[in-house]
Amino acid sequence: MVEEQFPLKGYSLPLTPQGRSSVVEPPPWYYGGDIMQLMFQADPDRIKALIPPPLEMGPYPGQGIVWFVEWVSVSESNPDLAFINPERTIYRECLVLIGCSFQGESGYINPYIWVNNDFTLMRGFFQGFPKKLARIYLTKLHDLNPKVGGKRVGAKFKGICEAHGERVVEGSLEFTRQADPSELPAPRFFLMRHFPSIEEPSKPAVHEIVRSVVSDVKVADVWAGNADIAFMESAVEEVADIGPIQPLGGFYHQMGLTITGGKVLYRY
Amino acid sequence: MVEEQFPLKGYSLPLTPQGRSSVVEPPPWYYGGDIMQLMFQADPDRIKALIPPPLEMGPYPGQGIVWFVEWVSVSESNPDLAFINPERTIYRECLVLIGCSFQGESGYINPYIWVNNDFTLMRGFFQGFPKKLARIYLTKLHDLNPKVGGKRVGAKFKGICEAHGERVVEGSLEFTRQADPSELPAPRFFLMRHFPSIEEPSKPAVHEIVRSVVSDVKVADVWAGNADIAFMESAVEEVADIGPIQPLGGFYHQMGLTITGGKVLYRY
Amino acid sequence: MVEEQFPLKGYSLPLTPQGRSSVVEPPPWYYGGDIMQLMFQADPDRIKALIPPPLEMGPYPGQGIVWFVEWVSVSESNPDLAFINPERTIYRECLVLIGCSFQGESGYINPYIWVNNDFTLMRGFFQGFPKKLARIYLTKLHDLNPKVGGKRVGAKFKGICEAHGERVVEGSLEFTRQADPSELPAPRFFLMRHFPSIEEPSKPAVHEIVRSVVSDVKVADVWAGNADIAFMESAVEEVADIGPIQPLGGFYHQMGLTITGGKVLYRY
Amino acid sequence: MVEEQFPLKGYSLPLTPQGRSSVVEPPPWYYGGDIMQLMFQADPDRIKALIPPPLEMGPYPGQGIVWFVEWVSVSESNPDLAFINPERTIYRECLVLIGCSFQGESGYINPYIWVNNDFTLMRGFFQGFPKKLARIYLTKLHDLNPKVGGKRVGAKFKGICEAHGERVVEGSLEFTRQADPSELPAPRFFLMRHFPSIEEPSKPAVHEIVRSVVSDVKVADVWAGNADIAFMESAVEEVADIGPIQPLGGFYHQMGLTITGGKVLYRY
Repeated sequence: MVEEQFPLKGYSLPLTPQGRSSVVEPPPWYYGGDIMQLMFQADPDRIKALIPPPLEMGPYPGQGIVWFVEWVSVSESNPDLAFINPERTIYRECLVLIGCSFQGESGYINPYIWVNNDFTLMRGFFQGFPKKLARIYLTKLHDLNPKVGGKRVGAKFKGICEAHGERVVEGSLEFTRQADPSELPAPRFFLMRHFPSIEEPSKPAVHEIVRSVVSDVKVADVWAGNADIAFMESAVEEVADIGPIQPLGGFYHQMGLTITGGKVLYRY
Repeated sequence: MVEEQFPLKGYSLPLTPQGRSSVVEPPPWYYGGDIMQLMFQADPDRIKALIPPPLEMGPYPGQGIVWFVEWVSVSESNPDLAFINPERTIYRECLVLIGCSFQGESGYINPYIWVNNDFTLMRGFFQGFPKKLARIYLTKLHDLNPKVGGKRVGAKFKGICEAHGERVVEGSLEFTRQADPSELPAPRFFLMRHFPSIEEPSKPAVHEIVRSVVSDVKVADVWAGNADIAFMESAVEEVADIGPIQPLGGFYHQMGLTITGGKVLYRY
Repeated sequence: MVEEQFPLKGYSLPLTPQGRSSVVEPPPWYYGGDIMQLMFQADPDRIKALIPPPLEMGPYPGQGIVWFVEWVSVSESNPDLAFINPERTIYRECLVLIGCSFQGESGYINPYIWVNNDFTLMRGFFQGFPKKLARIYLTKLHDLNPKVGGKRVGAKFKGICEAHGERVVEGSLEFTRQADPSELPAPRFFLMRHFPSIEEPSKPAVHEIVRSVVSDVKVADVWAGNADIAFMESAVEEVADIGPIQPLGGFYHQMGLTITGGKVLYRY
Repeated sequence: MVEEQFPLKGYSLPLTPQGRSSVVEPPPWYYGGDIMQLMFQADPDRIKALIPPPLEMGPYPGQGIVWFVEWVSVSESNPDLAFINPERTIYRECLVLIGCSFQGESGYINPYIWVNNDFTLMRGFFQGFPKKLARIYLTKLHDLNPKVGGKRVGAKFKGICEAHGERVVEGSLEFTRQADPSELPAPRFFLMRHFPSIEEPSKPAVHEIVRSVVSDVKVADVWAGNADIAFMESAVEEVADIGPIQPLGGFYHQMGLTITGGKVLYRY
């Protein structure tokens, strides 16, 4: 996009004279979050239906993870936005990850994800996260609340994801011990970017598998615990089709990272 | 997308085994709405900055329209959704239209638009509407409220659009007379589809001008009146840069239509 | 409250120098609404638990009604508010009514009710409606949407009430015929006003049965149909304890009315 | 309320068979919060209008405080609620405090306060806080976000309060140093409980000045800094009538406390 030819500015719609209004600013994007991740074992036959070729089943067939996160994120071009307008920088998400592999490299795909703001919804679409809007409720642990208390052995944390009037995912963790960052699953994501054509609904204009390019991952304050997970029936969502699952424990931790873009691995 | 090769279904992300969860279903999309449209005259020099080539200034330089609408929409593939889950079918929007022309044909571009739900946000992106989330408040006229009353000469209707804690657009209409559908501006839209690349932020994967393909437009119960419009200063939005405007009157009416897709007019 | 002695003004908190900020303005309050009411038969033994003395079981033991409504309301002191700030005048509610009688006069009590805005939440408390916040989703029938259509034989309307991430009530109506206003149940309400003491939690400062003083009731555009109702299990709400119910049909109609206050019938 | 006579249970409406649904549970209430408090000097003549007798101007006429808080609270009767349903335990508030005195004892009254959930709205009314609903946006400082960072000298925190589509209060703090809990203003509140009569709008059923009974106050992690405050003009709110103010600095800190009720000091 050469500015002489095309006078509007911006990384994404709306493209405008100042380029200040785009719903998503260009990467790099900087994140800091508080994450509950809950591992589970599902029936590999059901999970298989969620992994489109050329992706393949991963080394632990049927394993997956649920994340509940509250993020604060800003971009390189507007690093002070968390102060200028906090609403533009904070969001919550609930996502389901499914173990898979691409050409022998293992990672996760993300069949379902819900968030609670527009900038992250669109930024997710640009990256290949199939985001939808929801309300996501998370326990707030607080050291000075006499009955709730802070992070400690025995602390209990719950996440609830409700979309279009239906509760669709619940997850919880009872903290049993502090843990080491090395115990966490590696967050390597194979994502599917998809943008429909407007002329032919059955032929997308963009359809590709990408790998997120993530750097500067930092993890702190990791707690391990016993997990519980529920995927609810819905008239709209299909997450309950994952079927009966067995929770395998989980973690609550802080994480920081930078996303600089993605690498296209495969084009359909 | 051949189903044998690619097992997931859906018009848009998330693509899933059942194809029931996509945030947007394939067209045709069927709409019925209650619309306040308010015409205005702005400074053509300021308006010019909003019209990217190959679009050109229209026959009435500096003229534009503000719409406040409450829509109910369903798709061909799920026509009963307004009953199954009303939340998935109702939304409000506030949009700004700017008169322009393409190869001698006059119409409108849409530099700014706000909506209040995810399915319409994404469906807008697929069509070329640069939608962002907002809360949109509209007067409810009601025949049986003794003080508010229904549509009539003297009725007053207001729309307020608030995004990320800022009020960004206000518009109002005082009904002066019933009007004929033929008095309404023709709703011909030149839209800009844009989808970023994930590898190179400055080179979009999709960037094109399209014309909406709209059919079965029906209009009913048209009222004309005196308009008022305000574009507010914002730390995020640029709509106030349209500058001082002069309201030129407006309409309130019902409209029904079907969108079957779009036609690409130009690729950047 | 003599103004010389007490300089702040207002019908309700906040009391302020101008008296313009109160969350609720003084009555009379003027209403216009679109109402779906669904009648049901429950087990009288379960219903009995919801009727506190001196109220007694009504002439049709175990009968009740569910209302889903979108109201627009304004007060005598600020009749133009629907135009000044629409958000302050529109709300939705879902309520459960239970047939009862007081000293031989039959009417309804309201054990459960949810609304979606603060002014109506507080105004409800002042009247004796035990309101809580929720999100309430209602079908929008629209004549010009080619697939949804307007009010007609065969039209289907649904209401969904979701509070704190749980769907708590669903109701729906399939229109079978136009009906006469005289077919509607009489809306006579026995309400319980209750305001806790701050010194002794077990002794309320106000606890009384009141009858709403309603005037100028107007009803229009009545449709009758087949009803469906579901009360959902909840970790917070008790509405599902009403137990299995049998829908008895329902109505969709417009209604206007004026509430000028209430009459205290009994003080505990 | 003797249970034999009155079978329904609960501290507040709705009173129900199980007593589990009340919008507010009985005290004690346990709080833990993250608080930004910003001190200001206003014109004492304007402030005077906000202090009703028998309260009097305090020792520092015209001084006030703005709080932006995110609280987690639970009650004695349901201490696990932060886990069972987080939404029922977290809320945000923005409040304005005005220095005053009662019979020679100095403290604060609270003319304006906004919160974002129903349980705290009603609990506030029972205590004498004149709460209204709003959306309250707060910066999230996070140690692991590379650009936002955590609490430190130079960190910047903003609060924004938006109600009914209007931004009504903004406040911000730039951290300059760690501080001692002893530097904080003492949180002693004189509150006004008020509950209208339903028969005579001009004669409230309850109207009294109370003092909150607060115990176990704990403060931690106190930062001092430079403050900025803005009260915005509104068609509904009167907070801007406080007039021009001079920020006097502020604090960001954690606080825990227990409220066991209130003591009535004066009945109108």
